[in-house]
Amino acid sequence: MLITSLENQKIKKYLKLKNKKYRDLDKLYLIEGYHLVKEALDSNLLIDLFILENANINFNFPYTFVTKEIMKKLSSLETIPDIIGVCKMKDEEKIRGNKILLLDDIQDPGNLGTIIRSSLAFNIDTIVLSLKTVDLYNEKVIRSTQGMLFKINILRKDLKEVISDLKKNDYLILGTNVINGEDVRSIKTDKFALIMGNEGKGVDLELQELCDKNLYIQMNKDCESLNVSVATSILLYELSRK
Amino acid sequence: MLITSLENQKIKKYLKLKNKKYRDLDKLYLIEGYHLVKEALDSNLLIDLFILENANINFNFPYTFVTKEIMKKLSSLETIPDIIGVCKMKDEEKIRGNKILLLDDIQDPGNLGTIIRSSLAFNIDTIVLSLKTVDLYNEKVIRSTQGMLFKINILRKDLKEVISDLKKNDYLILGTNVINGEDVRSIKTDKFALIMGNEGKGVDLELQELCDKNLYIQMNKDCESLNVSVATSILLYELSRK
Repeated sequence: MLITSLENQKIKKYLKLKNKKYRDLDKLYLIEGYHLVKEALDSNLLIDLFILENANINFNFPYTFVTKEIMKKLSSLETIPDIIGVCKMKDEEKIRGNKILLLDDIQDPGNLGTIIRSSLAFNIDTIVLSLKTVDLYNEKVIRSTQGMLFKINILRKDLKEVISDLKKNDYLILGTNVINGEDVRSIKTDKFALIMGNEGKGVDLELQELCDKNLYIQMNKDCESLNVSVATSILLYELSRK
Repeated sequence: MLITSLENQKIKKYLKLKNKKYRDLDKLYLIEGYHLVKEALDSNLLIDLFILENANINFNFPYTFVTKEIMKKLSSLETIPDIIGVCKMKDEEKIRGNKILLLDDIQDPGNLGTIIRSSLAFNIDTIVLSLKTVDLYNEKVIRSTQGMLFKINILRKDLKEVISDLKKNDYLILGTNVINGEDVRSIKTDKFALIMGNEGKGVDLELQELCDKNLYIQMNKDCESLNVSVATSILLYELSRK
């Protein structure tokens, strides 16, 4: 089947998913390109699929061909993809596992996506996004995760409440601070929650006070700080090596 | 002094710097925001300075006020900055130092900027960009470096020739490959050149063959790879700890 009209009901519905309001309402979002669609299918999250007419793609999932005009409207990329999928959001689960990452108001979509990708690499069990962290289903976030968002437990919650619960359950709450901090390489813990903060402001002061320990990454003193996705990745890398 | 006209000769000249062609011709580029301008001044690279009329900024360098309209035209940001500087490019120097990073066709400006920032943090002496790597003076690259590009020696050269020279001078040439690779934590070297590749294609095959050793980062097998700026940062972090 080939859809040629932008007035098609399905297409009209899915075009709205470019807007966060409708993503949240329908619990659906769009993903672009073969790699992401493949990962979503493998994770049983794919619910609909569109392929560019005449594209040489074979996919083991029911799909509909669409014209270049429709693909262009659905896409948020400059170069139109051959394939676009519609995914359902996962039901929010509870915090599980012993290795938790708390993200306090991360604003840049690329940073959030990259952090999610690294979290899978370094064995994080649950990521909790603060209420003001950038939307998980923003197209740039999804692209930067390289599909790893399908494979990891991600919630959105008030971090103060979360930390209070975690403390009752004996998680070591880890912050980042050079002053009074310890070199991350010297920390040994199997049950922790690491808090990372906003690109400009860092971690909220109230949350900082709830930390049991502060970590730092040994580096050249001429460099004030690292990009937050890099700093998070190095800390998780070190914590995964215990 | 206040400039109010977009027809002002200086403004007309500097507006052209938003285009790579004119940046290369004039050996000049624009930087936005207080932090970057301050870093450029400290590195003696600032040659001209514009401040938004009525902005409450005091700067220890001769400056001209401009209208909001002019600032908006000069800026590449959605939120207009209070301050924009004009910088001169540094003269290309030679490769110096014992810790070299070679970047083979990095395409994403954010990745290049982040890698430059991490390179300073982890004591890299010289970065060599391949001929097809994204422009160093792209506004997103500059923003992502957080001013660290002023403090590190960066060249653009054909990497094959560079590696051939480095080999003659006893640098250990390091690539990244899980197959036949060694855990980066086990490598000890004080004189090396690490090659990192393009986001999609990785390192050019011809260059791969010139590597003396391949490194890998220990991670969860469900994760195929890390973002290139994250991978580079972790490798440099480890190599800086020897």
